[in-house]
Amino acid sequence: MVYTGLYDFMRLQRQAPDPLYLQIKDGLIAAIRAGDFAPNERLPSERELSEQYDVSRMTVRQALLSLVRDGVIYTRVGKGTFVAAPKIDQQLRTLTGFSQDVQARGGRPSSRVLDADVVNAAPEVAAALRITPQSEVIRLVRLRLSDDLPLAVEKAYLPFVRFPGLLTHDFAVESLYAVLEHDYGLALTQAEQVLEAVVADAEEVRLLELTAPAAVMRMQRLTVDSDGEPVEYVLSSYRGDRYKFRFALQAGR
Amino acid sequence: MVYTGLYDFMRLQRQAPDPLYLQIKDGLIAAIRAGDFAPNERLPSERELSEQYDVSRMTVRQALLSLVRDGVIYTRVGKGTFVAAPKIDQQLRTLTGFSQDVQARGGRPSSRVLDADVVNAAPEVAAALRITPQSEVIRLVRLRLSDDLPLAVEKAYLPFVRFPGLLTHDFAVESLYAVLEHDYGLALTQAEQVLEAVVADAEEVRLLELTAPAAVMRMQRLTVDSDGEPVEYVLSSYRGDRYKFRFALQAGR
Repeated sequence: MVYTGLYDFMRLQRQAPDPLYLQIKDGLIAAIRAGDFAPNERLPSERELSEQYDVSRMTVRQALLSLVRDGVIYTRVGKGTFVAAPKIDQQLRTLTGFSQDVQARGGRPSSRVLDADVVNAAPEVAAALRITPQSEVIRLVRLRLSDDLPLAVEKAYLPFVRFPGLLTHDFAVESLYAVLEHDYGLALTQAEQVLEAVVADAEEVRLLELTAPAAVMRMQRLTVDSDGEPVEYVLSSYRGDRYKFRFALQAGR
Repeated sequence: MVYTGLYDFMRLQRQAPDPLYLQIKDGLIAAIRAGDFAPNERLPSERELSEQYDVSRMTVRQALLSLVRDGVIYTRVGKGTFVAAPKIDQQLRTLTGFSQDVQARGGRPSSRVLDADVVNAAPEVAAALRITPQSEVIRLVRLRLSDDLPLAVEKAYLPFVRFPGLLTHDFAVESLYAVLEHDYGLALTQAEQVLEAVVADAEEVRLLELTAPAAVMRMQRLTVDSDGEPVEYVLSSYRGDRYKFRFALQAGR
């Protein structure tokens, strides 16, 4: 489809072999590429689009759902459909935290603390942190947002004996890495990270305001200090439609 | 649930608050962990399980589907349900090809060539390879298997002018990287790689024998030679239920 102007995307070819919803989808993509809708701008509602195109709301919904799947637009519950900014292009070269990453991209990071507690370490967590199973760990679960848009759920576990006063901080506003550095004089020097692509579970769909079925990037990170001692074990889920992760590989045996 | 023996997983607590399908699921996980079923061993059929548990096939199906989602078991079309080996733990440190990776893990790599052709470069491919749009590129599309199990779909693009005789090779049996090294004396020294978690599309579901909805890890790789010249641009989709990708991060600004 050649894009010729603002309302061109309204003209459907009802005799064409392409299904109507695909024509609507392609038209909206062309309009977004041409700049008629800016990133984070609201699209016309399902009802408005169905009237303008003179098609059923089902057809419009099919086009919008397909655009959501492709990460071209996103929905906010009760607020409508918005044009997605290009995916966040996250460099995986150096060890940085979420707040720092968002700030480096010019965004405003924030957090919603879902849980901040001291619990007994599950076997997996104890093994990662190299502590006795059942010993006490700080569990800090946060929803991470950039400009009020939820991007990731992060569950961090730290050995309680090392950081007994940690939970006096308010991690809705403070950066965990900044506190570890300033209050505990810790240099986080190295991390091992594991990435997996999975279908979002019900909790991830709800917290990250996704449309099921959706994909998330699950990330497992073990961070160690300059003595090689494990400091934190973090399990995160990043929105698949908002993130891509980039890194370099070298030749070698 | 405490696992006490081979047929323990057959005993359901019909008064318990957990739904029956979850009890069946947990029982099967316990049986697999206890070694009653080995990796790649076939599980009893849906019909057999529904008779042994005395529940509907719907309930059994729900348990099996949930285990497939979690990557604990996998289905092979027309063949049944099998116990998954632990996820492939792929190191992303050095630049290696699929064949080499599978061999290093003791597997037998194979490929099904889906397309081997010379085409005009699409804008995205031309930009990545830094060639004139529309100029000729070799497109090599392969389904990559390990021990006859499909693990990834790989679309490789290479500039035709540099490798005019490349398609005389049979890439169902030969390794692309080995041919580039031996026949063209090329040292692949560095690559940039991008990972994204997405919901598998219909083609990926079919080729990778997935159960929809499923997640795949899409990988984009640009490989350069020792002169920094782009050699190949590869778009791959790895089964999310079979792969995890591991790498190290260093502190730094």
